[in-house]
Amino acid sequence: MAKDPKPRRPRAETPKGFRDYFGPDVTERKEMLDRIAAVYHLHGFDALETSGIETVEALGKFLPDVDRPNAGVFAWQEESVPGGGSGDWLALRYDLTAPLARVAAQYRNDLPTPYRRYAMGPVWRNEKPGPGRYRQFYQCDADTVGAASVAADAEIIAMLADALEAAGIARGDYLVRVNNRKVLNGVLDSMGVSDPDTAADVLRTIDKFDKVGESGVRELLTTGRKDASGAEIDGVGLDAAQAEPVIAFLTSKGATNAATLDNLRAAVGGSVVGAEGVDELAQIAALLDASGMGPDRVVIDPSVVRGLGYYTGPVFEAELTFEILDDKGRKRQFGSVAGGGRYDDLVERFTGQKVPATGVSIGVDRLLAALREKGLAGAQAQGPVVVTVMDRERMGDYHAMAAELRVAGIRAEVYLGNPKNFGNQLKYADKRGSPVAIIQGGDEAARGVVQVKDLILGAKIAAQASVEEWKSQPAQVEVPRADLVATVRRMLARETGAQ
Amino acid sequence: MAKDPKPRRPRAETPKGFRDYFGPDVTERKEMLDRIAAVYHLHGFDALETSGIETVEALGKFLPDVDRPNAGVFAWQEESVPGGGSGDWLALRYDLTAPLARVAAQYRNDLPTPYRRYAMGPVWRNEKPGPGRYRQFYQCDADTVGAASVAADAEIIAMLADALEAAGIARGDYLVRVNNRKVLNGVLDSMGVSDPDTAADVLRTIDKFDKVGESGVRELLTTGRKDASGAEIDGVGLDAAQAEPVIAFLTSKGATNAATLDNLRAAVGGSVVGAEGVDELAQIAALLDASGMGPDRVVIDPSVVRGLGYYTGPVFEAELTFEILDDKGRKRQFGSVAGGGRYDDLVERFTGQKVPATGVSIGVDRLLAALREKGLAGAQAQGPVVVTVMDRERMGDYHAMAAELRVAGIRAEVYLGNPKNFGNQLKYADKRGSPVAIIQGGDEAARGVVQVKDLILGAKIAAQASVEEWKSQPAQVEVPRADLVATVRRMLARETGAQ
Repeated sequence: MAKDPKPRRPRAETPKGFRDYFGPDVTERKEMLDRIAAVYHLHGFDALETSGIETVEALGKFLPDVDRPNAGVFAWQEESVPGGGSGDWLALRYDLTAPLARVAAQYRNDLPTPYRRYAMGPVWRNEKPGPGRYRQFYQCDADTVGAASVAADAEIIAMLADALEAAGIARGDYLVRVNNRKVLNGVLDSMGVSDPDTAADVLRTIDKFDKVGESGVRELLTTGRKDASGAEIDGVGLDAAQAEPVIAFLTSKGATNAATLDNLRAAVGGSVVGAEGVDELAQIAALLDASGMGPDRVVIDPSVVRGLGYYTGPVFEAELTFEILDDKGRKRQFGSVAGGGRYDDLVERFTGQKVPATGVSIGVDRLLAALREKGLAGAQAQGPVVVTVMDRERMGDYHAMAAELRVAGIRAEVYLGNPKNFGNQLKYADKRGSPVAIIQGGDEAARGVVQVKDLILGAKIAAQASVEEWKSQPAQVEVPRADLVATVRRMLARETGAQ
Repeated sequence: MAKDPKPRRPRAETPKGFRDYFGPDVTERKEMLDRIAAVYHLHGFDALETSGIETVEALGKFLPDVDRPNAGVFAWQEESVPGGGSGDWLALRYDLTAPLARVAAQYRNDLPTPYRRYAMGPVWRNEKPGPGRYRQFYQCDADTVGAASVAADAEIIAMLADALEAAGIARGDYLVRVNNRKVLNGVLDSMGVSDPDTAADVLRTIDKFDKVGESGVRELLTTGRKDASGAEIDGVGLDAAQAEPVIAFLTSKGATNAATLDNLRAAVGGSVVGAEGVDELAQIAALLDASGMGPDRVVIDPSVVRGLGYYTGPVFEAELTFEILDDKGRKRQFGSVAGGGRYDDLVERFTGQKVPATGVSIGVDRLLAALREKGLAGAQAQGPVVVTVMDRERMGDYHAMAAELRVAGIRAEVYLGNPKNFGNQLKYADKRGSPVAIIQGGDEAARGVVQVKDLILGAKIAAQASVEEWKSQPAQVEVPRADLVATVRRMLARETGAQ
């Protein structure tokens, strides 16, 4: 008889579209989020942490009346309750705004009004994974619920600028640009576009401003254009005169906020909602000015179009203005790392009442990539001092050394692998990025000394110097046992200084 | 014709078994975890963050060959890949050890050996929710993978004691107790119990030691006993003499570690594995001693039975020794907040190779509850200074005040609700727990002054004093506008000092 086949071993694989984060990948993101959270807190925002799971009903976008409501979200049905019919559909949250809407409705009698909250944490998307596209990622949001005044928008815009600086982006390396959906509505008014379908077409065209520029938008609003591949793109069918207010709106940025606001007043003509929108931008500009936010940090800029379709009032976007090299080695601006605006339908789904809200979302991975690009993250990632093991019988001595170093605030550990091969211990220290190794054999112990080896300097010498020079360098010193901590500290200071 | 019925509004409800955490609930836990992470890092442990989702296959406990493998976990099947058969089963992780096993197997050629890692984050359990039992909660683990030496156990035990102190538990308020599964195996040896079923019965009985005590264990090992309800519990059926080594093991704690180890040597008789177990405990005791961990922090204590069935070598548990009042007003010790031990089957499922591992898990919610019990969490939770709005036209002035306060590091915000009713503004400040309110009407603005109102002192006066006394108290002061920040700072210092 044949033997039973061995059961197949499970594959040890990160599920497709997910990632594992090691060491500095975790701590650098955490430090960045901590700094941003401190700014949010300073501005009076309170933390909120909901669980990763919501009912599909509360998430809203996905309804339980289809067989499997998991298009875009990870969803599953609860076990049916005995005698109680089928179970609820649950899903992993796909952003931090939907849970805020649920919380704002559920606790509306207990929360302060306005309610300022920040939230940071993972969200999940059931999408086809692709290069750089993951199915779990962090979001970092701050929102004010229940404040109709644009003072709330101004506050969040100023807070965003402060948060970017706290994260490490220098003034001058970023710019927050502010626009207003109401101004665009005023432009549509003044064009005589009242048909919602045409308005939607105009909005879709405006969304392409970043890509096709002024002349492209002009073509798309009227008779259409050929795209890069030669394909004909239909135009919206407006006449040339009708297209001009849109162009005026998109290009109304002047040398100062005052000049921009004048241009916008002209672009909206006699529209009431348009005038309201311009007034709101003027108020925001004045409040930012009063808060000490100059045009080097925040400007009114009607060419910001991202989110204009989604938001109902002020919209804003933070861009990093320094240049990086793209995949093909060409210089380009780093680009957008955060955005937000005003929206009024947050709580309405639950309660039937419109509740004004405004908020910002920082692109955690984008901002972290920018900090790494600038060399502003990860400087502190350093391996521990490794106390090597020469005599297995004297583990107590080695543990005592590591404990002493830690009491002095120095990251340290005893080598815990098989100590037989000393070379493996130094290889291990190298793999850990250890700055210093401690060595004490029986001979050294008898003489009351330890060897302290500067691994970073050692590696440099090994890479650069001849054997003669190597020998004269003090990459390894023998010091009295009592001087262990002081010697390590001096070595670490030298390395930090040299970096 | 009847109108269409309105679509039912979604319920704004936290899903059953889940929780929302507000403000200090979030930040207090975060601060505790930050302090623990700093200790782990100091000991050479690196952060690891895997995603919340694993394949059911990698999680292991739950196999994809049943129709719906979600007993105990939240699981769902991926969409089938076109032409590629049915999709993978995915699940939310139920602990942080299963993902570590997957990572240790997947990256075994890249990770250092030993690999020390810590992980903190939410885990999910698909269990019936009950009072105090939630379906998402935090875990906080540290493990060393690939170190066979008990020096790794000693290191983690010492680190646990340091972590508890860093979190705020004073020395003397906790004790880490250490036992060893091998010693118990030695006891079974010396009893002549080799049948695995009988051994399992003995282990199950030992698990009840905490509840039924010495005489209860003796009864259960032999002929059985009546429980509190009068029900007969069958005994294991050993004879009275056979039960004695188990009792000797459980009660072998002496006045010193040395005395305990002597008692254990007697309890294991001539068993080889038993002697090995006692030797391991002796080594751990010596290493802890060398690391400066006295018996006020860690002791060898064979009455620790939790986890003896699961772990393969040393096991340990941290208990908080101070008393609290239970639900019925009776004094009892706070009890266990962390535990861990050695296990060898971590990676074997994936690779077929046994890899020694040892680790600790801190009960995040339990430890946080202990800190709150001791008044050690939440002291810093304070609302923002609220700049009230007297004149809607002077929002810029109010924003400037808030900005100035924030530059000085003082948490501050402008009131953003409808400012018409001033009483509502003070009610809002009260709801936020604001320490100070700033007031400046047109009159004050003209005179260049602001009113600074100490809300905490004001509340105390309102609660305790007569109207006459109230008037004489400086709960509200008028100061020059230029003195705003200094005045607020002085008031906050007074309040902090008074707490």
